[in-house]
Parts: sequence; structure tokens; C-alpha cells
Amino acid sequence: MKPFRGRVLLAAVWLVFAASPLRAQQDAAGQIKDVLAAQSAAWNRGDIDAFMEGYAKTAELRFASGGNVTRGWQETLARYKARYRDRAAMGALTFSDLEVTVLSPDAATVFGRWQLHTDKGEPNGLFTLLFRKTDAGWRIVADHTSAAEK
Amino acid sequence: MKPFRGRVLLAAVWLVFAASPLRAQQDAAGQIKDVLAAQSAAWNRGDIDAFMEGYAKTAELRFASGGNVTRGWQETLARYKARYRDRAAMGALTFSDLEVTVLSPDAATVFGRWQLHTDKGEPNGLFTLLFRKTDAGWRIVADHTSAAEK
Repeated sequence: MKPFRGRVLLAAVWLVFAASPLRAQQDAAGQIKDVLAAQSAAWNRGDIDAFMEGYAKTAELRFASGGNVTRGWQETLARYKARYRDRAAMGALTFSDLEVTVLSPDAATVFGRWQLHTDKGEPNGLFTLLFRKTDAGWRIVADHTSAAEK
Repeated sequence: MKPFRGRVLLAAVWLVFAASPLRAQQDAAGQIKDVLAAQSAAWNRGDIDAFMEGYAKTAELRFASGGNVTRGWQETLARYKARYRDRAAMGALTFSDLEVTVLSPDAATVFGRWQLHTDKGEPNGLFTLLFRKTDAGWRIVADHTSAAEK
């Protein structure tokens, strides 16, 4: 009987874990990392529109960089397109040192580092993201980015 | 009877509000703003140690600026003291455009703008803070700051 009881115990442990807040947090963190991976993949094929899918499509979206705040999804898209006019300017994007913290069933922060590899240099810096769970899935509602001094 | 019933109704509405999540959020936002007001007051009397009371006293504290991450409360204190050696360097600090969002009973973000008024110039920029409710009250556990280009 012992092996059978062992399997029942394992199944019970798995069921409790599957329904647990810890499991929910791990699922959320995985989904958020997927959004960021899709963003960098989109950037690296030169598709800013697809990159922008990671952001919540609302007028409340907050994009902060240096000393400037841009409000709204459309305005943030326009900022990216003005700043990165072609593939050469976009370069190749890498996200690293990601730290995802799930704060509630519908809110999470992500800290990380960005680096662009371009013909003209390697601009890099840090970002802090606030994600909320929306009807479309986890989306960035606030992005604060800063650049390392050259 | 009507006036009495009116007062009972008002009292009932007040009781529901006093115990409501909205009221709890307003209380949290107020406490967080108090922490920031205490920080700027401490800074403006030249007291970096008191300013640092707004941060969680943990080795996990994350302070991000430009392209650099400082870890730990002691390390962040040391960074401030190295960077602002005297009252003249500290200048006068103002926080503005504060946006407090309470995400859960123990987590909140604050977006805002900082400005220093010094004899040598007016450096300014943006910050994004993650607050957690600790045994000592609401404290900053992560700070991302960026400076406007000069």
C-alpha cells in the first residue's frame, strides 16, 4: 500500500500547490516575462507597433524618461517612432537582470536593464515597469527608463 | 421620524465608508505622502540620516539611478553622503506632481518629480518609488530616479 499512499500524497500536494497563491504568482511572473520577450523580439525585427502591444492601450499610460513624462499609448508610440526612425537607429535590444515582483492578483513591478547594440554605440540603462492585469492580459501601465551616462 | 432616520442613514453610510477598501487606500496614500514630506523636510535641514528613514532598512533596498543600481540601506546612505557632502551640495529639495497608487494592503507606487535648488544650478528629474507596508510603517523598498538632460 505504501507506494499507492505515496502517490496519493504527491497528488494531494500537487493539487494544493496548483491552487495556491504561490502558483498564481509564478504563473503571473511567467506571463509577464513572456510579454517582455515578445517586446524584445518585436523590436529586433523592426516592428515598433508589435513592440507597443506590451503597453496598455489607454490614455493613462505613463512613460517617463530622464525628466520627461509622456502620457497615453498613442503618444508613447509616436515618441518611439520619432526617436527610432529606422532599423539602424533601433539596433538590437536586450533586456537583462529582470526582477519580477507580483504584488497582488492584478499588479506587478519589473526591474531590469536595457541595452541597445547599434552601429553608433551601445546605449544602455535601467527600467522600472508597473504591470496590471487587463482584459488583454498583463500589460505595462507605467514605464520609467533611465540611461547610463556616456 | 424622518430627520432621525436621515441621521441613522448618514451614520450607516459613514460606518461602511470608514471600514471600506477606499478608506483604507486613502489612509495608506496619506501615510505615504507623510513619509515623503518628512523626507524633504529632513533633506532641507541637511539631515541625510533622517531623510534615509523613509527607506526600508534592509539589504534588499534597491536604489537605481541612470545606469547604476545600489543595493542595501547602508549602501544607499553611503551613496547619498558621498554625493552630497555639505548643505551647499544638498541645496533645497522639492517633490512635486506626486501620483500615489495603492496596489494592495501592503504595496503602493509613487510617481513624482524632484528638483534641487542649489547655488550651482537646478538639477531635476523624475522618480518612481515602490512602497511596502513594514512593521515600521510604509517605507520605500525600491527607488528609480532619473535626471533631466542639462
